[in-house]
Amino acid sequence: MKTAQRILATSLELFNEHGESSVTSVDIANELDISPGNLYYHFKGKEIIIDALFELHTQQFDAILSADSAAELSIEEQFYYFYVILEKIHLYRFLYRSPMDLVEKYPSVAKGTSKLVKRLESTLSALFLAAREREQLRFDAAEHTSLVELTSMVMIQSTQYQQLKQRSDDHNQIYNALAQLLTLLMPRLQVSVENLNQLQQSIALHAFTRNDE
Amino acid sequence: MKTAQRILATSLELFNEHGESSVTSVDIANELDISPGNLYYHFKGKEIIIDALFELHTQQFDAILSADSAAELSIEEQFYYFYVILEKIHLYRFLYRSPMDLVEKYPSVAKGTSKLVKRLESTLSALFLAAREREQLRFDAAEHTSLVELTSMVMIQSTQYQQLKQRSDDHNQIYNALAQLLTLLMPRLQVSVENLNQLQQSIALHAFTRNDE
Repeated sequence: MKTAQRILATSLELFNEHGESSVTSVDIANELDISPGNLYYHFKGKEIIIDALFELHTQQFDAILSADSAAELSIEEQFYYFYVILEKIHLYRFLYRSPMDLVEKYPSVAKGTSKLVKRLESTLSALFLAAREREQLRFDAAEHTSLVELTSMVMIQSTQYQQLKQRSDDHNQIYNALAQLLTLLMPRLQVSVENLNQLQQSIALHAFTRNDE
Repeated sequence: MKTAQRILATSLELFNEHGESSVTSVDIANELDISPGNLYYHFKGKEIIIDALFELHTQQFDAILSADSAAELSIEEQFYYFYVILEKIHLYRFLYRSPMDLVEKYPSVAKGTSKLVKRLESTLSALFLAAREREQLRFDAAEHTSLVELTSMVMIQSTQYQQLKQRSDDHNQIYNALAQLLTLLMPRLQVSVENLNQLQQSIALHAFTRNDE
């Protein structure tokens, strides 16, 4: 791995573990066993590192969201899609730990976050409309916006919510969020009891596996 | 109003408007037109002011939550109760703007926030169980925890979510959250279509008024 890539990988790890505000450029250099001068040669300060990580996250996120959401997905496949989104958020979880704080400190993150949330919402919106079209999901016009916002909010903020309760079990965050999404959407799903039970079990047993691998 | 009270009222206003991290003790003294020395005589630093405001918020919040939640509430009364909780949160909204950041900066807030969220959850939990008992609300045992968490999360984090989208219309925050709570609970409510329509309209028209005034 090139030095610039190693710097980003290590920064991401440290930010995720300790939070962005507790980690300095010097901490990152120390962790990598390079001089602060060498770090500065690659990234002129912490802000540039944050920008680069945010850019990487946005690219990866966009790649997922631009998948054809009008595709014929079964309910289980839709939840698997949620799982993949949650995984990406989890990978860059320091961005979601105290998002308004980051937004206020880093102007480029402010714009990017607003775009990213709107992008997620419009993907979910299209997904829900297609599912309603196929009679998999039930909601009326007045509920559409709220339902999209609720789903997106759970994806983006449920980890922070657990941290506020001082329950920050990294390992379970993705499945916690999935269980909440299931509770949110369950009474609106128009699928067989058998399918629902299977989905509920997959989430409870943390048994979402990639079908495509 | 005594000076100490005026300091707290002005601090709350400034924190709500600009965020805790952008406001210093000197800003507060300037706004009140008193000397920093006079401010320091009453509160030995910003941390003490934050602690005092958090304590006030906790007291007011606890007073609402300790209302008899097993009381026979109609669905409309339950949403009015949510409205009252949201109002209290809105009054101290700087605490909810970037909560993990505050928690990390102020140790006393960390403990207090965790307690406050758990208190809110246990109140909602009792409320939902009572509503199920009266056949107003439908959920199964496996969903109970998630449903409580979702409701509490909307109450605590929906304002932050709107801010992340750069839509921070202070005036509508409470009704936005209420609309989301209605969408969340709607398919689980066992009440007449007439009652539901009325509730939906009250929220859409921002027409929640205190019946007890």
